[in-house]
Amino acid sequence: MSRDQHALVVEPWCLRETRLDLDNLARMESLFAVSNGHIGLRGNLDEGEPSGVPGTYLNGVHERRPLPYAEAGYGFPEDGQTIVNVADGKLLRVLVDDEPLDVRYGELHQHERTLDFKTGVLSREVEWSSPAYKRVRIRTWRMVSLTQRAIAAFCMEIEPVDDEARVVVQSGLVANEDVPVTTDDPRVAAALQAPLEHEMSGTHGAFASMVHHTRVSGQRIASAMDHESKSPNKVSMESKANEEWARTTISTRLKAGETLRVVKYVAYGWSHQRSAPALRDQVAAALTAARDTGWEGLLAEQQEYLADFWDRADVVVTGDPEMQQAVRFALFHVLQSAARAERRSVPAKGLTGPGYDGHCFWDSETFVLPVLSHTVPDAAADVLRWRHSTLDVARERAQQLGLAGAAFPWRTIDGAECSGYWPAGTAAFHINADIAHAVVHYIHSTGDLAFEREVGLELLVETARLWRSLGSHDRHGRFRIDGVTGPDEYSAIADNNVFTNLMAAKNMRAAAEASARHHRQATDLGVDAEEAASWRDAAGAMLIPYDEELGVHQQSEGFTDLAIWDFEGTEPEHRPLFLHYPYFDIYRKQVLKQADLVLAIQMCGDAFSAEQKRRDFEYYEALTMRDSSLSSCTQAVVAAEVGHLGLAYDYASEAAFMDLRDIARNTGDGLHMASLAGAWIALVQGFGGLRDDGDMRFAPALPEGLDGLSFGLLREQVRLQVEVTPTSASYTTSGGGLTIYHYGEQVDLVDGETAQRGIDKSPKLDRPRQPVGCEPQQRDEMASGMASLVDD
Amino acid sequence: MSRDQHALVVEPWCLRETRLDLDNLARMESLFAVSNGHIGLRGNLDEGEPSGVPGTYLNGVHERRPLPYAEAGYGFPEDGQTIVNVADGKLLRVLVDDEPLDVRYGELHQHERTLDFKTGVLSREVEWSSPAYKRVRIRTWRMVSLTQRAIAAFCMEIEPVDDEARVVVQSGLVANEDVPVTTDDPRVAAALQAPLEHEMSGTHGAFASMVHHTRVSGQRIASAMDHESKSPNKVSMESKANEEWARTTISTRLKAGETLRVVKYVAYGWSHQRSAPALRDQVAAALTAARDTGWEGLLAEQQEYLADFWDRADVVVTGDPEMQQAVRFALFHVLQSAARAERRSVPAKGLTGPGYDGHCFWDSETFVLPVLSHTVPDAAADVLRWRHSTLDVARERAQQLGLAGAAFPWRTIDGAECSGYWPAGTAAFHINADIAHAVVHYIHSTGDLAFEREVGLELLVETARLWRSLGSHDRHGRFRIDGVTGPDEYSAIADNNVFTNLMAAKNMRAAAEASARHHRQATDLGVDAEEAASWRDAAGAMLIPYDEELGVHQQSEGFTDLAIWDFEGTEPEHRPLFLHYPYFDIYRKQVLKQADLVLAIQMCGDAFSAEQKRRDFEYYEALTMRDSSLSSCTQAVVAAEVGHLGLAYDYASEAAFMDLRDIARNTGDGLHMASLAGAWIALVQGFGGLRDDGDMRFAPALPEGLDGLSFGLLREQVRLQVEVTPTSASYTTSGGGLTIYHYGEQVDLVDGETAQRGIDKSPKLDRPRQPVGCEPQQRDEMASGMASLVDD
Repeated sequence: MSRDQHALVVEPWCLRETRLDLDNLARMESLFAVSNGHIGLRGNLDEGEPSGVPGTYLNGVHERRPLPYAEAGYGFPEDGQTIVNVADGKLLRVLVDDEPLDVRYGELHQHERTLDFKTGVLSREVEWSSPAYKRVRIRTWRMVSLTQRAIAAFCMEIEPVDDEARVVVQSGLVANEDVPVTTDDPRVAAALQAPLEHEMSGTHGAFASMVHHTRVSGQRIASAMDHESKSPNKVSMESKANEEWARTTISTRLKAGETLRVVKYVAYGWSHQRSAPALRDQVAAALTAARDTGWEGLLAEQQEYLADFWDRADVVVTGDPEMQQAVRFALFHVLQSAARAERRSVPAKGLTGPGYDGHCFWDSETFVLPVLSHTVPDAAADVLRWRHSTLDVARERAQQLGLAGAAFPWRTIDGAECSGYWPAGTAAFHINADIAHAVVHYIHSTGDLAFEREVGLELLVETARLWRSLGSHDRHGRFRIDGVTGPDEYSAIADNNVFTNLMAAKNMRAAAEASARHHRQATDLGVDAEEAASWRDAAGAMLIPYDEELGVHQQSEGFTDLAIWDFEGTEPEHRPLFLHYPYFDIYRKQVLKQADLVLAIQMCGDAFSAEQKRRDFEYYEALTMRDSSLSSCTQAVVAAEVGHLGLAYDYASEAAFMDLRDIARNTGDGLHMASLAGAWIALVQGFGGLRDDGDMRFAPALPEGLDGLSFGLLREQVRLQVEVTPTSASYTTSGGGLTIYHYGEQVDLVDGETAQRGIDKSPKLDRPRQPVGCEPQQRDEMASGMASLVDD
Repeated sequence: MSRDQHALVVEPWCLRETRLDLDNLARMESLFAVSNGHIGLRGNLDEGEPSGVPGTYLNGVHERRPLPYAEAGYGFPEDGQTIVNVADGKLLRVLVDDEPLDVRYGELHQHERTLDFKTGVLSREVEWSSPAYKRVRIRTWRMVSLTQRAIAAFCMEIEPVDDEARVVVQSGLVANEDVPVTTDDPRVAAALQAPLEHEMSGTHGAFASMVHHTRVSGQRIASAMDHESKSPNKVSMESKANEEWARTTISTRLKAGETLRVVKYVAYGWSHQRSAPALRDQVAAALTAARDTGWEGLLAEQQEYLADFWDRADVVVTGDPEMQQAVRFALFHVLQSAARAERRSVPAKGLTGPGYDGHCFWDSETFVLPVLSHTVPDAAADVLRWRHSTLDVARERAQQLGLAGAAFPWRTIDGAECSGYWPAGTAAFHINADIAHAVVHYIHSTGDLAFEREVGLELLVETARLWRSLGSHDRHGRFRIDGVTGPDEYSAIADNNVFTNLMAAKNMRAAAEASARHHRQATDLGVDAEEAASWRDAAGAMLIPYDEELGVHQQSEGFTDLAIWDFEGTEPEHRPLFLHYPYFDIYRKQVLKQADLVLAIQMCGDAFSAEQKRRDFEYYEALTMRDSSLSSCTQAVVAAEVGHLGLAYDYASEAAFMDLRDIARNTGDGLHMASLAGAWIALVQGFGGLRDDGDMRFAPALPEGLDGLSFGLLREQVRLQVEVTPTSASYTTSGGGLTIYHYGEQVDLVDGETAQRGIDKSPKLDRPRQPVGCEPQQRDEMASGMASLVDD
């Protein structure tokens, strides 16, 4: 058992904290968040204080606020959106002989928290003496149900250790908690201060409910709680409520060794349209169902749900226990972010924190969905159904921008563009191709033609229309897409970004193909043969800038002619660049925040020869500062493909530990869902070599230090289990046969049988150069850094 | 005598309004503004109301305010600056038997206002009956002294027409007048509402003074007034003051035909550093001097100053009376904007209105200074001395941006960058070369080597350093300047903008040359031989993108590969484009707001062959929408040069009538100083063919419809008079000899003698095409449009 500097223990199936670090509360609250994608609870202490950032989030619940501009322009969004902290149902305050449990007072003898990936429960054990020397042992369990999406449930046990004590539990539901202010715009602060307006409250015995609404966005939110208690002695329970809080007080007297057990059920419901009484009744009904299931029943459902998930989706890493923990931690949180989102978005931080205002970006389709499509395909479909539900807004936005089809927002909660800096927002049109790519990938993974017909086709057609109107043919017949921003945020408003152009071409081809498959539906969407032809033609004529002299692709046209950033002259304290240098200077030089051309290699591999991939990777590797958390997993995947396995391992490690090690130093605002998904991507697409762009292709190879890798995938409802060793790979299906490719060799898998193939390690290449100071930490160094902390 | 739709009469030496149009008050207030560059008074009615935009401005007096960003970035300026309306000393309210003069009540029998270009006085004649049928004749005169820079003076005469009346004049000095609110940011509105904080007031007889300061920018402003009156009957005068106003009340009783005459002297003083008592005494002293001079004395000084100006600077247009008036109106206002600015800026609107927040842009050096250098050279020097005084701020800004030397602001009042949208602000680095160009042009025009040594050299050196650090050599040895914005605001953040690169090259060469001329001073600035060589080398290697296929220069690299804007599909009501299309779309297409490459042809003509000039002009002509008021004069100059004389005339007319006809529909915010200067530029550089980049070259040619053009210029203190007829040009100097070039032929002019040369009209070319709906109005149509309004 090893332990990192933040008292986190390395174990295969859970995240465990063995002491409480008051200086890192926010970070731990994010790591220990529980969610089902519908409701998210940060890992705030049960007693509420001390806290880093209190957080209870409901997917889609937000407030609108003005977006200010020093100099406004046509089409700049006027309103922003910010996720709001709703009524906090996590609160279980404890009083021991009238002394409130607060770890900052008295003495904390023991503290341990465990997030169990198999049970889906966050548990905590505390032994604490009050300032008056009353010692109690407290155990709590917390879950957001994966099976009953409106429900969170809590259990608390309190036991006096040495002496009799009067124990009071105040269970709360508290609206408009103070949250840290992060803006200096008084209008924004005003919009977000106490965002919940009261409508009704009610109590009955151990039950309490409240209804609030947000002032400007007009969302109505109902919350309710109910309680059960068990004590060897008499227990009194009573509830009160006012406009901002409801409270159930549970009181008993315990002898040493006796235990009070309180179970709390909390339900949330929210709607733009339903009335307050309807929502109030809705949460009461959900609570009734939860009480009927009972705490043990909810635990059992949760475990069953997760057992099924791990059975098909587990990734086993042999020889690297930290990585083993990290990838399960990652998969668990990715699942939590999306499992029950059900036609809502997966925000960049999931429902684990207020970072990025709770917005959803391209991260969701580009990084999270490839994982979901192979592991929780229904959740992937729901995210795309959410995009589909925002098509009208996207069509309006396209029209406002003078474009055809649909222009999806760079950042949003409800589908409206909220980007306040257009060169890195509106201009990043690739989001549209990213969505289309996720549609195609989902359909390839699942064979879900009904989805394609009902949802996918329209998304493909409207985004293809966008590209066709955004680009144009030049006098040489090349199709150009000028003045857009690709994935790399250290370049903007450039012509013919390779990633964008390749993805747009795929998008247009996919729209043409899907229109052919679903002729009647396509006709209903107004697609005719000429339009489909114009997509195929534009895709075929797409301009892909290439520097013949250097023998590399240009990230965008002219990119390789630009001055190279003065990496040597950049002080380490001047990173990340965007906080220390003006955009104009960053944009006009060869310097990358994150993989861009390399992401094109990953996602559009057919467009590159093997030699081009290697040369391109090495060229851009020397320019990439990785100031974005979205970069490492892509670099890992392509490093592995071109033969830099050791480097790939380093990048995989960085992606996997982004939050566990707080590499970006902002985990406190919420987890990086894309990086967490990236841990899976780095392993499965990197060392498993999976590419799934129609055919399912593998080119597995393990780096030194990894003894084995195994992972499960769903493909058209068939389960595929892949086991990779340093010298071979074996493929086993269950539930049907499957054709896959191993290093280009077609392998027809028969249900229940295992096919094994050898792996020829590619020749060892010289490790490519990164910018000074931007080299990833080597996996073995990072691991030994951890080992040295054992028994710290 | 013809009259336009706004009751403006065409006369050679004045602007005359013959009726009051209540719907166009703001526009007329701008046209009738009087200023000396130090103090500016909008043409508000003497009685204060009704008004469009009340305005009394002191050059440099501003308030700071926060610049908000939806998404902030490194180096975005945090504070903006806004010109403030200081205590209004124009007010002379009149009561006739206790009825206030207000043209909206009673009956206005006659109204006439005249701005006289020879006397420098705005006069007004009103005959008005009060609602109680008391008829009075009122005449007023208003001037801002060109000789006593702190002084404005007013005279009012009131005469009852039919009947005896009690007449009261309330002369005011009113701080914190209500002005129209133009922001929806409450912080900005708060900063600018009642910006003047009171410090002291005092009165004594007919004298009153006040001292205020601005809250955040901390500027202290003193204002004072004193009065003389004359009446056949007893007059009482008394003054009062409080925190926001001072008032002197002058009261008398007049029989019909008797006249009360009131003279009002107003003085202003302001400072960042001087104390309130010191400023109070300063304005009292200025008032004493003005009273000593007396109203008639001030009138005489004003007339003498202007006689001298017109003697050397008048432009005589034969055959086009409207143009004659327009160019004198223009010259008069250009003079007013700068005459006594004395080490302050010339804002884009002069001191005629609050437009552009009162900021100074590149307009000043690029458009206004070429006129001043040849007509009021001391004023040109003072503007450049102002830039020089802001060098420390510009050096700090350069450092903040990671650059060497000095980065002058895109927009500012006090020298600090106030641009809130960097792609059209910070990135428009050409402002630095524009300043350098103005330095060089001023020195060529005046031979003022002391200025070069003391002021010019440092400006040239620090801007050259900026360019050297902003650009870099690529692997082919070309010097590139990437990711900047040229003059055309419909393109941004482009590589190797031809205008910018040519101007930067000139800047660097000029710095090297000046450093050689002033070796000791250059050494003091740290310039050594290596640095000067690096400037010459970069200038020599400058990349100038050229499209070999099309045979035209590229406005910036790759420009001619971009899609051409859909001009046909652009509805007239969707102009100007920037109000109806998003920047991203405008930037990535071939469409120009204003001359850019064509301005390079004008300012860096040596870099183009005659054939290239014509081809380039015609190519860009088809793309230029002229949505900026800064375009027409440049198009006029280059159209004339390449042989499109008729078109040049149309553009000259548009520049000249920008404000008189309110072509941009925002004259109400203030006059367009650059366009006014552009009227001179279009005539002198266009039809006079003047280029003055070392040698003074002329290539005169008149368009059909102009019978003659004559203009005066100063060149190294020699007066040169040029007379152009359709077939010949004659050049006469006084005060010394001069060498000039007439169509390339060297002509050595002898003091007092006239040299005449013939003009061969160039062959008639086909008129080039403009974008649909962007054709300039043809001069003869515009003129006949005016003629048809005669007797309207």
